[in-house]
Amino acid sequence: MAVLTLGTVAFDTIETPFGNSGKVVGGAASYIALAVSHFSKSQHVVSVIGEDFPKPFLDELESRGAGLDGLTRVEGGESFHWAGSYHDDMVGRDTLATDLNVLIGWEPQVCAQGAKAEFVMLGNLDPSVQLAVLDQIQSPKLVVLDTMNFWMDVALDNLKKVISRVDVLTVNDEEARQLTGEHFLPQAARAIHAMGPKTVVIKKGEHGALMFQGGEVFFAPAYPLDKVVDPTGAGDTFAGGFVGYLSARHSASGALTWDDMKQAVVVGSVMASFTCEAFGTSGLASLTAQDMKDRWQDYTQLSACGDIAWPEG
Amino acid sequence: MAVLTLGTVAFDTIETPFGNSGKVVGGAASYIALAVSHFSKSQHVVSVIGEDFPKPFLDELESRGAGLDGLTRVEGGESFHWAGSYHDDMVGRDTLATDLNVLIGWEPQVCAQGAKAEFVMLGNLDPSVQLAVLDQIQSPKLVVLDTMNFWMDVALDNLKKVISRVDVLTVNDEEARQLTGEHFLPQAARAIHAMGPKTVVIKKGEHGALMFQGGEVFFAPAYPLDKVVDPTGAGDTFAGGFVGYLSARHSASGALTWDDMKQAVVVGSVMASFTCEAFGTSGLASLTAQDMKDRWQDYTQLSACGDIAWPEG
Repeated sequence: MAVLTLGTVAFDTIETPFGNSGKVVGGAASYIALAVSHFSKSQHVVSVIGEDFPKPFLDELESRGAGLDGLTRVEGGESFHWAGSYHDDMVGRDTLATDLNVLIGWEPQVCAQGAKAEFVMLGNLDPSVQLAVLDQIQSPKLVVLDTMNFWMDVALDNLKKVISRVDVLTVNDEEARQLTGEHFLPQAARAIHAMGPKTVVIKKGEHGALMFQGGEVFFAPAYPLDKVVDPTGAGDTFAGGFVGYLSARHSASGALTWDDMKQAVVVGSVMASFTCEAFGTSGLASLTAQDMKDRWQDYTQLSACGDIAWPEG
Repeated sequence: MAVLTLGTVAFDTIETPFGNSGKVVGGAASYIALAVSHFSKSQHVVSVIGEDFPKPFLDELESRGAGLDGLTRVEGGESFHWAGSYHDDMVGRDTLATDLNVLIGWEPQVCAQGAKAEFVMLGNLDPSVQLAVLDQIQSPKLVVLDTMNFWMDVALDNLKKVISRVDVLTVNDEEARQLTGEHFLPQAARAIHAMGPKTVVIKKGEHGALMFQGGEVFFAPAYPLDKVVDPTGAGDTFAGGFVGYLSARHSASGALTWDDMKQAVVVGSVMASFTCEAFGTSGLASLTAQDMKDRWQDYTQLSACGDIAWPEG
């Protein structure tokens, strides 16, 4: 089934203790769309770029089935640009520049086909833009929202409006705590359920992801990489793998089960691991089916410990 | 098979953002011995206490099969006492007092039966004491070492001597990084293998535990508790559950497989979750077989996502 992907298509400049990216293609929708494309050839991207954005990346997206009718190109405009520097722990980071450029005043337009998408991935953006897109979708089966602490600081009311209208919220652990005022994650998840989303995915980066739904909880570890080159976009990639997999499952099975949701978290975790291994989107774009299957095989062994009963004392 | 448990039997005074423990029984060997006792009735505790230590706790240990012939009681002495205060995140903590008391000048004595123990759990203590105990064990089948960053700062040479003589090292993620100078945990684990231990368990608290052995890696999540009352002793409890389970498995199967090791990490994780739910050792001591089985059941569902093949795109 079709996926609508909202988010930035942009430039990033990234410093880590181990290297520098230079100016590379990034943005939430770039990562989401590439991840989705490995599972669905029916995708519509809603975003905005400047005249400076490289055509080859757009061609790459289109060749993977991502429709760009909802991608606004501003003549004479400059694309969104984020620059950041990661700390030694490769988790904390300082923002060095946020050049909004063409994001300022952008009014997202969903094309006629995109408006019929059954799966909607609202990538991290101003909640007012997320609302404007959601208003244009006719009857989505599943809406997934990603956001970040910045919007909790500056646009909490609008953010809560979006949250109340989505099925799945993905945030990291600190964001879940900030949003709810609850320190312990099961309690934070319950507070988020009360805001609307029946499913809550809490991303913990190198420490994996927790999903809460209907009193159930599921944990997926992060794949233990030998080296993290750049975690930028890992959360977006996770979301893209999650929603892309679910859109494919839904076609097959007709309805989404708790097992489908759990497997989607696993798929998202596997996909995110590839993004961490390179600067920008290059790692994700060049993946083969065999690459993904091989890592998936490794991944499934990671927490498998055989069938045992609790030992009698 | 018999377990020898080395560590402190002591007092703790703990503050958290949610409450205060007052002065309670703590110490690495107290937690380890209680955890072991749920799996093995053949245990020897090597430790030292002052005249002030409460007899009921010692009676409790003995009633659970923990032999105290190796427990030195210093007439007129005061037991080791640690006081600490946890930060809001319930992970970081400040040490408010470390009263070594009877630990000063203590020369550990392993009793004749203890010297024949097949499983040895060297709890966190001065590496010179750990070495002195190890020298008294005749032919251990498995030696597990727990330590902490403090000994890396003040006794690195002796610590490396102990590390070179053990089968399993358990440390937390920051300690693994400090010990090896490697940031990424798979690389840190390889560096620790090169120091001697064929098995490395990296404890990540609320984020679970990673085990490395022979090129394999296993991840066990932490049980997602609704509320953490006090994480003190969770690492010791993990180690006690780990070694206690292995001592029971070894009797049954004759040799320890990689599956046994993985299951031991799961058992340790389940046991540690109980310690986090109360101040001191009370939660761990009062556990019933049903409590443990129930949580184990929940735990095994936590990462189970059904059998799936990697989806075809």
